[in-house]
Amino acid sequence: MRQHEIQFRVRYSETDAMGFLHHANYFSYFEVGRTELFRAQGGDYRAMEEGGLFLVVAKLDCRYRVPARFDDLLTLRTTITAASEAKLEHEYQLFREETLLCTGHSTLACVDRSGALQRMPAELLRMCGEST
Amino acid sequence: MRQHEIQFRVRYSETDAMGFLHHANYFSYFEVGRTELFRAQGGDYRAMEEGGLFLVVAKLDCRYRVPARFDDLLTLRTTITAASEAKLEHEYQLFREETLLCTGHSTLACVDRSGALQRMPAELLRMCGEST
Amino acid sequence: MRQHEIQFRVRYSETDAMGFLHHANYFSYFEVGRTELFRAQGGDYRAMEEGGLFLVVAKLDCRYRVPARFDDLLTLRTTITAASEAKLEHEYQLFREETLLCTGHSTLACVDRSGALQRMPAELLRMCGEST
Amino acid sequence: MRQHEIQFRVRYSETDAMGFLHHANYFSYFEVGRTELFRAQGGDYRAMEEGGLFLVVAKLDCRYRVPARFDDLLTLRTTITAASEAKLEHEYQLFREETLLCTGHSTLACVDRSGALQRMPAELLRMCGEST
Repeated sequence: MRQHEIQFRVRYSETDAMGFLHHANYFSYFEVGRTELFRAQGGDYRAMEEGGLFLVVAKLDCRYRVPARFDDLLTLRTTITAASEAKLEHEYQLFREETLLCTGHSTLACVDRSGALQRMPAELLRMCGEST
Repeated sequence: MRQHEIQFRVRYSETDAMGFLHHANYFSYFEVGRTELFRAQGGDYRAMEEGGLFLVVAKLDCRYRVPARFDDLLTLRTTITAASEAKLEHEYQLFREETLLCTGHSTLACVDRSGALQRMPAELLRMCGEST
Repeated sequence: MRQHEIQFRVRYSETDAMGFLHHANYFSYFEVGRTELFRAQGGDYRAMEEGGLFLVVAKLDCRYRVPARFDDLLTLRTTITAASEAKLEHEYQLFREETLLCTGHSTLACVDRSGALQRMPAELLRMCGEST
Repeated sequence: MRQHEIQFRVRYSETDAMGFLHHANYFSYFEVGRTELFRAQGGDYRAMEEGGLFLVVAKLDCRYRVPARFDDLLTLRTTITAASEAKLEHEYQLFREETLLCTGHSTLACVDRSGALQRMPAELLRMCGEST
């Protein structure tokens, strides 16, 4: 499984004075999307952290097309676009019904508690459909 | 020293669709106020945490009088109203020039890394003017 | 209907360096709880704002008992404890399974676009079981 | 003037369970950087919004190199890298002393209250050193 969708509503606390979902909050949604994709694959990110491995964000981008508002019911589609021992790449597409609101990307690396780079766990790569 | 003031501006990301500073963000300001009061007393909260003691919030309240907007230059007055081995109490008053926008209170307890209750450090109480 | 429950997970972005759900974020949960209770009553807070009436927070408090962590599945029970033309009061209880994590309260007032106090709409009070 | 620096400390509420400044919060810092650069140029973004023109984010990216922690004293250098009637581009470099923590970019467009695209105001472009 390399793709997963979640649905949620924009919270009032996530809006800004322009009346829109504030641009920084999209990245917190993307994080929820990755976590839920991992759960749907059978993974457990919290257990992974408790085991001493952390996925840290190395790069992020987002292109905003149409703004979202309070209480909008949104669908976030999260797709793994690359998975290797070095990094994990996701693409995010946020929709309100059929309208694409934004497209984003992230690159994650794996580190230990001290922050030293580690290989992505083989089990995580297998869940992403990589033969290891 | 039991009272300290800081000045800062409301960030756009802290506003909401009503055009006001969102009510939850006042509590993050209060936290900055406590940290800066502690620094002005000669304390270092980060070092305290690195030493294994944490101040956790047991109670919070806030009464909102006048809303704040993006870019408002605000003054937060933080006052220690009680300090004992069991707890630390602060009062917060947020002003825009002479106008009082809100009044808040917090009660903090001290815990160790495992979350077990600890006595407030004697040095912290001395900084608050308590004879220990 | 005066009580409603929602379930959700703690997001990573809502945690802090102590490893816990940050104390300010509970108030954003409470806001979601009120919105969903209003929706379950047949109301639509967004439409109410579009119609020119806003519910503003006059008072908030929270007593924290047990911390929450990333990915915890929480249940928020929101209860209307008072409803009148002058104000609306809610109580919040946040649970992780059977464990009560915190109890909070809010008092809301109704204002128009200019911020002038208004009576709570009769329809809103009827939804809360008040005869008007 | 096309470059400006601000200094601030990482707030506790901005950290996450990894013990670091959460990656989404960098974008709120960038927004403060742009606002303060505009103020240093003699502009007033709040007045611009009150006049009916809004700068909306069309694209964002950030490359994270070294994490930041609670209470770190950071310097954000904001630079205008392109300014035209169609868009405004900024680069952001965040430092802890001499260490570069991240580099980010944003592209802003100008819209009116209805969300319709507008030309960047001539006065804003002049402040950025563009002859119009």
